[in-house]
Amino acid sequence: MAHLLSTSYSIKLSSGCKRYSKPLNQGLEAFPTSFTLQASKYPFRSLVSQGQKPLRNYTVRATTLPISKEAPLQPSSDTHQTSNEPSKPQRVMVIGGDGYCGWATALHLSKRGYEVAIVDSLIRRLFDHQLGVDSLTPISSIQNRLHRWKSLTGKSIELYIGDICDFEFLSETFQSFEPDTVVHFGEQRSAPYSMIDRSRAVFTQNNNVIGTLNVLFAIKEFREQCHLVKLGTMGEYGTPNIDIEEGYITITHNGRTDTLPYPKQASSFYHLSKVHDSNNIAFTCKAWGIRATDLNQGVVYGVRTDETEMHEELCNRFDYDGVFGTALNRFCVQAAVGHPLTVYGKGGQTRGYLDIRDTVQCVELAIANPAQPGELRVFNQFTEQFSVNELATLVTKAGEKLGINVQTISVPNPRVEEEEHYYNAKHTKLVELGLEPHLLSDSLQDSLLNFTIKYKDRVDTKQIMPSVSWRKIGVKPRTIRA
Amino acid sequence: MAHLLSTSYSIKLSSGCKRYSKPLNQGLEAFPTSFTLQASKYPFRSLVSQGQKPLRNYTVRATTLPISKEAPLQPSSDTHQTSNEPSKPQRVMVIGGDGYCGWATALHLSKRGYEVAIVDSLIRRLFDHQLGVDSLTPISSIQNRLHRWKSLTGKSIELYIGDICDFEFLSETFQSFEPDTVVHFGEQRSAPYSMIDRSRAVFTQNNNVIGTLNVLFAIKEFREQCHLVKLGTMGEYGTPNIDIEEGYITITHNGRTDTLPYPKQASSFYHLSKVHDSNNIAFTCKAWGIRATDLNQGVVYGVRTDETEMHEELCNRFDYDGVFGTALNRFCVQAAVGHPLTVYGKGGQTRGYLDIRDTVQCVELAIANPAQPGELRVFNQFTEQFSVNELATLVTKAGEKLGINVQTISVPNPRVEEEEHYYNAKHTKLVELGLEPHLLSDSLQDSLLNFTIKYKDRVDTKQIMPSVSWRKIGVKPRTIRA
Repeated sequence: MAHLLSTSYSIKLSSGCKRYSKPLNQGLEAFPTSFTLQASKYPFRSLVSQGQKPLRNYTVRATTLPISKEAPLQPSSDTHQTSNEPSKPQRVMVIGGDGYCGWATALHLSKRGYEVAIVDSLIRRLFDHQLGVDSLTPISSIQNRLHRWKSLTGKSIELYIGDICDFEFLSETFQSFEPDTVVHFGEQRSAPYSMIDRSRAVFTQNNNVIGTLNVLFAIKEFREQCHLVKLGTMGEYGTPNIDIEEGYITITHNGRTDTLPYPKQASSFYHLSKVHDSNNIAFTCKAWGIRATDLNQGVVYGVRTDETEMHEELCNRFDYDGVFGTALNRFCVQAAVGHPLTVYGKGGQTRGYLDIRDTVQCVELAIANPAQPGELRVFNQFTEQFSVNELATLVTKAGEKLGINVQTISVPNPRVEEEEHYYNAKHTKLVELGLEPHLLSDSLQDSLLNFTIKYKDRVDTKQIMPSVSWRKIGVKPRTIRA
Repeated sequence: MAHLLSTSYSIKLSSGCKRYSKPLNQGLEAFPTSFTLQASKYPFRSLVSQGQKPLRNYTVRATTLPISKEAPLQPSSDTHQTSNEPSKPQRVMVIGGDGYCGWATALHLSKRGYEVAIVDSLIRRLFDHQLGVDSLTPISSIQNRLHRWKSLTGKSIELYIGDICDFEFLSETFQSFEPDTVVHFGEQRSAPYSMIDRSRAVFTQNNNVIGTLNVLFAIKEFREQCHLVKLGTMGEYGTPNIDIEEGYITITHNGRTDTLPYPKQASSFYHLSKVHDSNNIAFTCKAWGIRATDLNQGVVYGVRTDETEMHEELCNRFDYDGVFGTALNRFCVQAAVGHPLTVYGKGGQTRGYLDIRDTVQCVELAIANPAQPGELRVFNQFTEQFSVNELATLVTKAGEKLGINVQTISVPNPRVEEEEHYYNAKHTKLVELGLEPHLLSDSLQDSLLNFTIKYKDRVDTKQIMPSVSWRKIGVKPRTIRA
């Protein structure tokens, strides 16, 4: 890690960001605190727009307006557009638009006629380098992705490369792009990553919480009617012994009643960072009139969407490793390469799941039906609940149909979590807005298992087993694989 | 602010902490993000122990053992001390021990026979310089305070000057002092300060959350049986329309029941930082077996404790300004100088209050009766509830007895909060442990109003009015008074 950090310093120094330059030998130290980790992100503090125009001139614009026929629903009348203005497509800034959910969402919104900008530091790609892991699918550079998208569809997606923890950068993206909606995927999103060592725990909370604070301040300062669509996680709720509601619960206590934020019991520094975000957002909705939708998303599976399968250069990433891989995706990879499915502990852990094609649907529904000023809506964004054992059974059966003999083993649970528990989470609000779910039973065989089989020669089986322990996390910086 | 930051860099450079030295011109920039603010704290990253022995030699120790007669209750048998060891006084690390509550607590614990170390970056004193405000009472340097304490009582309090956000510093304090209990006051504790501008909001959350994360990691790594006594705030709960319980609430919902964390509705970036802390601590108790007590403290008033009134050099600080002053203390200063009491808005805001003499009692009770491994106890630490209007009436009446004509005015509320609301917060757990409350009606006239009259010539009336608006907070760095 120290070596890689020093690399990032080199990049920064060569980028000419002199305001933040530091002696190179600082980067060679093991990073003892959050400071160095933060500083390591400044290499990305450069602005790149499509067409290579420097953002500081405020000339960056989409060169092609979306086709009006496909123009999305306009925001409701309480936005800043007045009735005298011609109807213009909504401008959506997708923070983290180079990532797994963000990329699929950015393309979907662009296809649907929204004017889209991607804001991304690309640090997710750096994590892969640092941890020595890779997506199952080969993924193109963000620049090539966007050029391919333009050549296939005629639609431009603007690109701002930089770190939203750098408020000066974020300010310029806001003032340049003038978003009507910000979709915020731009966080470190792996629970195991946040549990590798103290530095990653601190990085995760700092990066996610401060990044989101900056987004809230940018909206307040530059685009007060802008709707924030923030990705949260179902993991914020933990596994309470009562039904999980969508964000709020009405409690009668000692003869009085109030509707309050649903109690949260997050179980990793990553999940906690999302809880912190939710609390910060709730405050700013109340104090500043921010309009926000918190999408508490379940575990996403799958990789194909209508847009990403248009061309191999648009292919989405697919993580199966012990740090960034999620349960179902990892099971499919394991089945494809003949590795036993690794159930953590008893396997009774039950969560909400959704197809990535539903992620993009849900985000669009949230954008098209915005929150009111001052409102924080919370939607539980998943379509079906499964226990880990149920997933293993489904994958086993799907494998049988393809002639694959799938084994399952239990491995010691690296996490601290209930392995047998009640779980019943509501998820009706997005369905009421029009969500038409893809069901796992319909997509498992074709869209997932056959897909992983196609790429099985790229699997690094060393990456499959869990490598991060919730209980053994220490204070010394740790490199997962030397 | 920029100027003051550059000053702090100068101090650092002269302190010889070369590992963190940076070019001086970095400090001269206005701080655009949290990074610079964090970096500005490194000047304090030096270790000073009583007797000036360098800590790196691990030779720092209290030179005088507390008098055995006054030895405090030993921790229960589940601590790391075995029955074969001689009974030793508990070692208590007071983080933030130079501040308002921390100083009074450190002296009280020392007097009661605990072996005490203060860990403090002294940044609270820097805030005064930066904001151009000052304590009503003249306060001595921490070094002089401790020398005076030693000369009066024969008791040594160790001193570690540094920033707990710097994990290397914190590690060394833990390995040197080997605390049995950590009392953690070491956070930016002003709601208005956190609402001055974006940089202070970010600083507050970063400083408080990462500092506490570091303490949790230090306990896990170096002193796993150490009991964390963490200062929270009643403000975490907000003003729900149901009774406020102590940390947890039992909810029956759709026929099922669970006891869950009490829902939080904090209303400033400061209060939110405490909510984030509470959530992080809860997770580490569950995942790592940390033993912790979260003291959700009400608004503290008063200044005198048995120990701080022993000598003027031990005098505690007393804040009355619009940023760090709390309601009742400020009212007493206003009454003393003939300034109308400034009620924010309607004045129906009701909160829990306590005398600082009860703060020190409560903390000692929490130490003497530690949480179990894996347990997060939450105590609501206050003794009486008052609305702001009730406080104004009490101060008016106390003034009459002293021949002072006290006026009250309503000023526009700079905060976003309910001004008329239900409020009933439980606070029995500390009473059950033995807390004997001081009541405001008994202490207002003598201990508060006469005290402020004594120092009224030191009042800067320009500091009294609120200067920070919850709604007007902006993104540009702001200096309250030029």
